Amino acid sequence: MDKLSLQDPVFATYVIAATLMILKAVSMSWLTVLHMMQVKGGFRSPEDIKKTPLNPKPNPQQLEPNERVERIRRIQMNDLESLPFFLVAGFLFVFTEPSLLLARGLFYGYVVSRLLHFAAYFTARTHDTRATHWTVGSVILIAMTCRTLLAALGY
Amino acid sequence: MDKLSLQDPVFATYVIAATLMILKAVSMSWLTVLHMMQVKGGFRSPEDIKKTPLNPKPNPQQLEPNERVERIRRIQMNDLESLPFFLVAGFLFVFTEPSLLLARGLFYGYVVSRLLHFAAYFTARTHDTRATHWTVGSVILIAMTCRTLLAALGY
Amino acid sequence: MDKLSLQDPVFATYVIAATLMILKAVSMSWLTVLHMMQVKGGFRSPEDIKKTPLNPKPNPQQLEPNERVERIRRIQMNDLESLPFFLVAGFLFVFTEPSLLLARGLFYGYVVSRLLHFAAYFTARTHDTRATHWTVGSVILIAMTCRTLLAALGY
Repeated sequence: MDKLSLQDPVFATYVIAATLMILKAVSMSWLTVLHMMQVKGGFRSPEDIKKTPLNPKPNPQQLEPNERVERIRRIQMNDLESLPFFLVAGFLFVFTEPSLLLARGLFYGYVVSRLLHFAAYFTARTHDTRATHWTVGSVILIAMTCRTLLAALGY
Repeated sequence: MDKLSLQDPVFATYVIAATLMILKAVSMSWLTVLHMMQVKGGFRSPEDIKKTPLNPKPNPQQLEPNERVERIRRIQMNDLESLPFFLVAGFLFVFTEPSLLLARGLFYGYVVSRLLHFAAYFTARTHDTRATHWTVGSVILIAMTCRTLLAALGY
Repeated sequence: MDKLSLQDPVFATYVIAATLMILKAVSMSWLTVLHMMQVKGGFRSPEDIKKTPLNPKPNPQQLEPNERVERIRRIQMNDLESLPFFLVAGFLFVFTEPSLLLARGLFYGYVVSRLLHFAAYFTARTHDTRATHWTVGSVILIAMTCRTLLAALGY
């Protein structure tokens, strides 16, 4: 059995979902950078208000929290609480030899739920909308993990 | 050699420990939700005090930090600093072909140390108790990682 | 093909880089502990100012943020935003069967960029220096991930 190959459809599906989620996570760092540059603030370290080519006119207010920047940081924090666990859970789920249909449903379902969660959070939709998207992803993650645990226990 | 199979006892041991830790991590998110619903507060985003079915009587105090909610967030933060690295380190440790006894001792020892850490943190035991449980898990993680590094270097 | 073996040079390179990064991440937790012990403060939980053998003379100021401790926490936060994703992205990149030269360049390049980032952050170099090191690592991570995504899509 050569499950772990990009030629295997289930593993390839996992890799596509995993790499998309990694790119999503890394994008949050860049989006934080972008927003800090736009508002010229939201910095966190004392040395960030030294005069440099990237910050020619520093002032102490740049160290105060900026809501636009903090919003991205909250989105990123939510990613950190979820994505690393999806990345490992999804990988281990491959060993339960799911059907391609099930793998696609769960892996891509998770990806879509996280993109919708981002859209809702970024545009400041109500808590209930954001929570709904988050819940879909979390339930998929829990379901995959429980299925894998049972398989490892021999059920 | 087919190390990466749920039929392999060492790999299955890893998968059991890993999925338990993933479920533990995800539970922290749900526990945060549960506490936020109980105290009707501890929210973080300005839009969370809009009136919605889940928050019919919003008020600005809901955005203030709530110690019960913050405690879970600190526990979760501690998870994020540890669990993703255990998940990868444990997986790579499988490639060093440890005995089943050693694998069980380290993998399940880590799981138990994290559950005790959670119990101590959640019930606000002294720092020393909490730190002791944390240290056991951290030392297991470091030992596995060093062993794997040496094996990859050919020792 | 037995790509996933410590005898395989590309996989062994990944494992060396991954274990070094895991040790780096875990070190940040210990460095936080060390700094908290040195300044006898920077604690976060109310129970941390109970009298214990490790904290024989507690006082409420120990719960106030301490810049030396906060600096390590910011460094660690930066690790959490990057390293877990590198660990998975690097592993999946192995399946694209890169040349050993390319794998070494990317994996060890990432490791070096993170160590330089740590050095710049720890010694409070200017934001621009720190950002440069961070950018190198982030670009390597993005490049590996995009290459893997394309391979999984069949390109």
